Amino acid sequence: MKNFDINEDPHRRFNPLINEWVLVSPHRAKRPWQGQNETISTEELPKYDPTCYLCPGNVRANGMNNPQYESSFVFENDFAAMKQDEIIFEDDIKHTFFKAKPEQGISRVVCFSPRHDLTLPEMEIADIENIIRTWQKEYTDLGNIKFINHVQIFENKGSVMGCSNPHPHGQIWAQSSLPTQVEKTQNSLKSYYDKNQTTLLEDYVKAELKAGDRIVIENDHFVALVPFWAIWPYETMIISKRAVNKITNFTADESTAFAKILKQLTTKYDNLFNTSFPYSSGIHQSPTDGLIHPEWHFHMHFYPPLLRSATVKKFMVGYEMLGESQRDITPEKSAEILRQLSDVHYKSLVK
Amino acid sequence: MKNFDINEDPHRRFNPLINEWVLVSPHRAKRPWQGQNETISTEELPKYDPTCYLCPGNVRANGMNNPQYESSFVFENDFAAMKQDEIIFEDDIKHTFFKAKPEQGISRVVCFSPRHDLTLPEMEIADIENIIRTWQKEYTDLGNIKFINHVQIFENKGSVMGCSNPHPHGQIWAQSSLPTQVEKTQNSLKSYYDKNQTTLLEDYVKAELKAGDRIVIENDHFVALVPFWAIWPYETMIISKRAVNKITNFTADESTAFAKILKQLTTKYDNLFNTSFPYSSGIHQSPTDGLIHPEWHFHMHFYPPLLRSATVKKFMVGYEMLGESQRDITPEKSAEILRQLSDVHYKSLVK
Ligand SMILES: O=P(O)(O)O[C@H]1O[C@H](CO)[C@@H](O)[C@H](O)[C@H]1O
Ligand SMILES: O=P(O)(O)O[C@H]1O[C@H](CO)[C@@H](O)[C@H](O)[C@H]1O
Repeated sequence: MKNFDINEDPHRRFNPLINEWVLVSPHRAKRPWQGQNETISTEELPKYDPTCYLCPGNVRANGMNNPQYESSFVFENDFAAMKQDEIIFEDDIKHTFFKAKPEQGISRVVCFSPRHDLTLPEMEIADIENIIRTWQKEYTDLGNIKFINHVQIFENKGSVMGCSNPHPHGQIWAQSSLPTQVEKTQNSLKSYYDKNQTTLLEDYVKAELKAGDRIVIENDHFVALVPFWAIWPYETMIISKRAVNKITNFTADESTAFAKILKQLTTKYDNLFNTSFPYSSGIHQSPTDGLIHPEWHFHMHFYPPLLRSATVKKFMVGYEMLGESQRDITPEKSAEILRQLSDVHYKSLVK
Repeated sequence: MKNFDINEDPHRRFNPLINEWVLVSPHRAKRPWQGQNETISTEELPKYDPTCYLCPGNVRANGMNNPQYESSFVFENDFAAMKQDEIIFEDDIKHTFFKAKPEQGISRVVCFSPRHDLTLPEMEIADIENIIRTWQKEYTDLGNIKFINHVQIFENKGSVMGCSNPHPHGQIWAQSSLPTQVEKTQNSLKSYYDKNQTTLLEDYVKAELKAGDRIVIENDHFVALVPFWAIWPYETMIISKRAVNKITNFTADESTAFAKILKQLTTKYDNLFNTSFPYSSGIHQSPTDGLIHPEWHFHMHFYPPLLRSATVKKFMVGYEMLGESQRDITPEKSAEILRQLSDVHYKSLVK
């Protein structure tokens, strides 16, 4: 019998945002890897690619031409997962086992830059501020549409995340329902707020700043940290220090600080394995259902799949799908590694 | 305005086993794919591979020799995610945001066959019955250990599922807590049983057999179907017709029928894209916490990642991670495709 050492012993941690546990196996990072390696493109990209359907002036799948855009550019997804059509729905389809209901939604693509070869860490702060302004405009415009109650802003980066085009871009899926993960988060945020009159994340950020060992970056208005309950090896969250519930409520200073922390975090990510680091990221913020949501607190999740190198990822498979998420390195260790990485992008050193 | 057509219109479906929704976009299967393709090994495997650490007689990472086993063979995982050590745990680590507790567990590897080159669909029924007996023995032995309250039997098949060795094998992770997904399932099964005095899956199977359009295979004792709420393109569940709560309660006839449906389902999977079809599968059944669990009903999940071909998978990324699971083909369509596939393995036709 020995005393519990969270840095050494297998344990479970609790995620209060979605009320789920994660299994942490600190000792397991040592096992040898004989499995699949990802192919990572190291190809130098051109500034403009005539075959890219996202580059300025080029033709998209639907036959339309992109404008000669100079900063960001937004268009409707040609293969949207949802449609705007209003559907008449008879509730008798409702059945214990066969419960279904139509869903209305709009999907958009947001090109981050006219440059085919740039990613967030390689852009200027002013360019990232411009992306933030685009997200604000889209959140407002889509949120104002009567049937849209939730606006999900996200980015899939890298072929290992199913992204088919390296041109820097993200997506927005706006819809009538709260998606499952958001609904879980909302329930947790709401019950915490009702009890404490502060947001869960306001108090969480304070506790993390005090603890210190999971903090990756801190500036005047934001913190980037590896959550205590992180699932992915280098998962992080950017959380606003102030309890601001949506991106449109940022002050000018907050927008700049958010742009800076985005650049800094993604630079560290690229520097981790000297590669354009793949991830899915996305913003969780207040629904657009017309209600006031004082319980909501702006945050952005980063879920990167890589574990050991530019080519070896963490597989969330059998046990994880049937049992629960499992990680092989502690969040504290990951935070330490990320914290110590340079803020200067590795590519700029080579040149 | 048009009437809701579940085969055409985007909609959400509800999964009563874990109380979560899934977004279904029937029209989206048409979008072109320019993204990552998986590399699928088509290499003919030898019956015995001197470099394989699972083949009979070979040496494992820990220096131990495998016996010259002739059917199945079980050993402790050399890189287990949990350990058996009892850990002294002071509850003061419990904190709103930093909630953690040590977890005890045992991980085992189950080799399905001494033959390096066989997979489930290529084995004889008698060989599969032998694997089922091995699972029964492990469920009993592990379940009888005082600190083990749950035994998770699963298989990761194919390099795309993080499986590093083609030698046919599965795993068992047995532990003191109920893993997250199992706990969710247990809650749903329990509240259904308390209300109806029948198991949720007993009634679900009846409803599915009546509907017919999601059934893939039916025999005297089991049904293989694409659940109404399936997430993965060709996800299936094998469910016992009788409300049997664990594998050790199978009759002899049920064991044989289970072996048959396992062979038939995995054969159809291989025939879908003429490839050794990757998936993670696993059994959900009664916990081993010493309580009677009349609410539990034996079932096995199959989560295969492939969508369009042997090399194009469905990426569960940005929207799915941040919002909710999304699928591009209806469960009814998938079931129809699987149902119509031959029960004769494509490789046996070539020979
Ligand atoms: O145990 P293995 O085969 O080494 O590892 C595989 O399955 C485990 C259980 O699903 C996962 O945690 C690992 O990420 C995966 O690579
Ligand atoms: O929309 P895309 O980039 O075509 O598609 C990608 O992102 C979507 C949203 O996360 C996923 O549903 C797809 O599986 C993935 O390939």
